[in-house]
Formats: sequence, structure tokens, C-alpha cells
Amino acid sequence: MLKAAFIQFAPIIGNLNKTISKLELLIEKTGKTNLVVIPELANSGYNFNSKEQAFDLAENINKSQYIEFLEDKCKKFNLFIVSGFNEKEKNQIFNTAVLIGPKGIIGKYRKIHLFMNEKDYFSKGNLGLPVFDIGFCKIGLLICFDWIFPEVWRILALKGADIICHPSNLVLPYAQKAIPIHAMLNKVFIITTNRTGKEGNLTFTGKSIIANPNGEILMSASENEEETAIVKIDPALARNKMMTERNDIFKDRITEDYKEIIN
Amino acid sequence: MLKAAFIQFAPIIGNLNKTISKLELLIEKTGKTNLVVIPELANSGYNFNSKEQAFDLAENINKSQYIEFLEDKCKKFNLFIVSGFNEKEKNQIFNTAVLIGPKGIIGKYRKIHLFMNEKDYFSKGNLGLPVFDIGFCKIGLLICFDWIFPEVWRILALKGADIICHPSNLVLPYAQKAIPIHAMLNKVFIITTNRTGKEGNLTFTGKSIIANPNGEILMSASENEEETAIVKIDPALARNKMMTERNDIFKDRITEDYKEIIN
Repeated sequence: MLKAAFIQFAPIIGNLNKTISKLELLIEKTGKTNLVVIPELANSGYNFNSKEQAFDLAENINKSQYIEFLEDKCKKFNLFIVSGFNEKEKNQIFNTAVLIGPKGIIGKYRKIHLFMNEKDYFSKGNLGLPVFDIGFCKIGLLICFDWIFPEVWRILALKGADIICHPSNLVLPYAQKAIPIHAMLNKVFIITTNRTGKEGNLTFTGKSIIANPNGEILMSASENEEETAIVKIDPALARNKMMTERNDIFKDRITEDYKEIIN
Repeated sequence: MLKAAFIQFAPIIGNLNKTISKLELLIEKTGKTNLVVIPELANSGYNFNSKEQAFDLAENINKSQYIEFLEDKCKKFNLFIVSGFNEKEKNQIFNTAVLIGPKGIIGKYRKIHLFMNEKDYFSKGNLGLPVFDIGFCKIGLLICFDWIFPEVWRILALKGADIICHPSNLVLPYAQKAIPIHAMLNKVFIITTNRTGKEGNLTFTGKSIIANPNGEILMSASENEEETAIVKIDPALARNKMMTERNDIFKDRITEDYKEIIN
């Protein structure tokens, strides 16, 4: 059994110090957990007024005040954290989810499905759909608008993810309805951490959610409050893909009939 | 706009004449509709006590009392019907969905994902995942347990299905939760017609459902009653895949990152 948590909060666009101060309190508040998920682009905020602003607020992953802050927390609390991260690499920026453990950065995913104006700011992710083994479980990463593409949930589950961590800055109300179904169809845990608050003309929809492999909602947040929630998760539940005594939903897949999905 | 209907009822296992009498009344009751969906294996019933019984209750599609009955109704009412059909071909039987129009049989799908004891009775479908153009809309076909495989909904939508007709004999309560989400993720209409009643140790879960491309439930049935429901559908809604003004959920697919789905 492990304890997993979401930290639903509102980063302060363009003010990393204030964002870190807020997060500091919230991470301390989650107490002794094993895995914490923080929203998308938590180091920068989301609703940029220009490509230049988006770029200016991005950080190189190896010299980032935000990453160092998370690394300190992971070390201090023997914790794994997944966070959204506005990542600069040379002259490009990526909408990234980073997985950090007590010994530092383990891996990252760069968002492949860009939403609305993100298409103006970010390069499409170029790291595929990785799954990371952290010993007591396997972690897959997706970000926000990825939710609407059933392919990516499926691929992470097929690659052995027990828990899919899904940092988000959702402005529409639909993803939260789909998450329990993605969990059920793939028999995985999903932790969707959404942000709250407003930035300019965007209002974020909160309602962070943790769902189990039966499609049950273990925990959900309010729309507007900054809040944390912790649940106990047995990752072994995600390794049993039996829907009935004779139906393993992965072994029952007829992949020769699925080829048209990548046409 | 077209009128689509489900006919939720309980076929009588081993008594095709009685099943047809029931259906006759229910089809008359749906009145002037364009498209009617009838449950899985409606010509035979479901819970066979042996492979021999399943085979004996199957019919060749070209000399079937049941198909002739449906053809008569389609002609009489200028109607399209999708029905589950226990289909015999030489020494095999298939769990089939047949699409019939005013001029006769248009096409069929043979279920590829077999549930529980169906594995003992039926051959796996060998016709792929066809979509049929009936003029005013395009129809995809799935059957019951196919619901848990997101790949097949996706493929039918990618192939242009506006409406996916899903004859079912569901004994679990989960599919009805997933249907609106499959509809939303693929921006298609779905008509899931489930059966009611009991056969031996199986109780069917009813709750037939029609969902629209926004994932909204247009109509749903009770758990236990035999009932029909008619809704107006504009198939053009399923041809608009825009989630936002800058996000076409089909054009935004990154198929080069999806290849692992068919490994």
C-alpha cells in the first residue's frame, strides 16, 4: 500500500517565489505520503500573453529553482513528486511533467497534444510515452488535454503503468467525467491534479480526482479551493486485468483488428 | 435529422416465434423511425446450456425466419434495423450484428471480443470493423463486451461512423457508464440497446442508452422493463470533431506516438 496525494492549487503566473511559498505549505500539509501530484506548468502559470512571456518563465531542468525546491522536498520527506513544468531547452520550450524522487529527477514526459494557444508557445513533446519503475510501482505521465485521446491511456497501461499521474490546468469540465472511465477501461489508478483560480480570461475547473482500476472515484476536490487529499493505493490492483474469470481485458485484445487506429 | 430508437426487451431463448411476436408489437410501437437497434443474439437468446444448443438456435443469414421478419418490417416502415443475430455459417457460429434496410441486408459485423462462455460457442469475428454508409448517415456496429476496448470505438469513428449501434446482452453494470464517454471521446452518437430479464443464472442489466457526441445521455431505459425510446439525431454533429476553435480531436492525434497500441 502506498499513500498518494494531489495538491490542487493556483500557481502565481510570473512569480515563482510566491508559487514556491504556497507549495511549501501544501506539501508540508500532505504529511507522510509516497507520491504527490502537482498541476501542469506549476513553475510558470499558464495563460501567457505572448510567446516571449512563456519562454521567459520557462526553466532549464538542470538549473531550475523550482526543480531544486521539489528535489529538497522529495529528499526531506522520502517522497516522489510529479509536477507540471515549463521546460526550456535551447530555443524551445516544452509543456513537461517531471517525476522526481528522493535521489533526484527520475524522468519526464513532454506533452504531445497541445491545447489552444499552447500551440503558439510550446514544441510538441519528443519523448514518446514513457513509464517509470520507482520500485513500489510503475508511473505513467500525461498532461491535461492528453485526456481526450484514449490511445495514450491505453499505451501507458499496456507498458505496465500502475498509476497514471496527470498534472492539469483544465478549463473545460469534461475531463473529470472521463478520468474514472479511462481508469476502468485500462484497470489503472489515475491521479488528475487540476489547478484552481483564474488567469486573465481563463477560469480553471478544479475538481482534481483520484480514480481506481474499477472506475471508482477515491477522492475528488472542490472546484475553487486550494486543497490536498491523500488516499491509500494498492498498486497490485492495477496488475490484475481480469474483468471476469475468463476475460483478461489485455489478453482479450485483438490487435490484428486494431491496425486502422494508427492509419 | 433522423429518428433513432432502441427496443429493450427480453428474447425468449429457444422460441423464435414468441420472440418475433414480442418484437412485432415493439417495432409497431416505435412508429415512424429511421433507425432501430435491437439487442444482441435476439433470434436465439443468450445463456445456452451447451455448444450444441447455441448451434441449434443459430440461423444461416440467407435462410433465416428472423431476418425475413426484420426485412419485412424495414420494407413496410422504410426503416433501418440493427439487430444482434446468432449466425450459422457451415460448422461455425458467430455472434453477429446485422444491418438491414428497406431493400434488405446491407452488411454485418461479427463480434471479435467474446465474453465468458461465448468463447466456448462462437468463433471470433472475421470481418474486421466495418462502417456502412446508408445515405443519410454512416453506421458502425459493435456488440456488448466490445464496449471495454477503446480501440474499436476509435476505429469506427476514424472510419467515419456517425452513429455506432451496439446491440448488447450486458450482465455487468459498467458499460452504461462508459458509453457516454466513448461518445464524447470520439464525438459520435452511440445507441446501446441492452436486453432485460433473466436466463438461468444470468440477469441482464437493461438501462439501454443513447448518447450524443458531447457525451450527453439523450435517452436511457429502466433496468427491468421492456421499453422503446425514440430520439431525434442530427448525424452532422458527429462530423464536427472540433473540441475548441483550435483543437480538432482527430487532426490533433499524434499517430506516430501511438504505434505501441498495436504491439
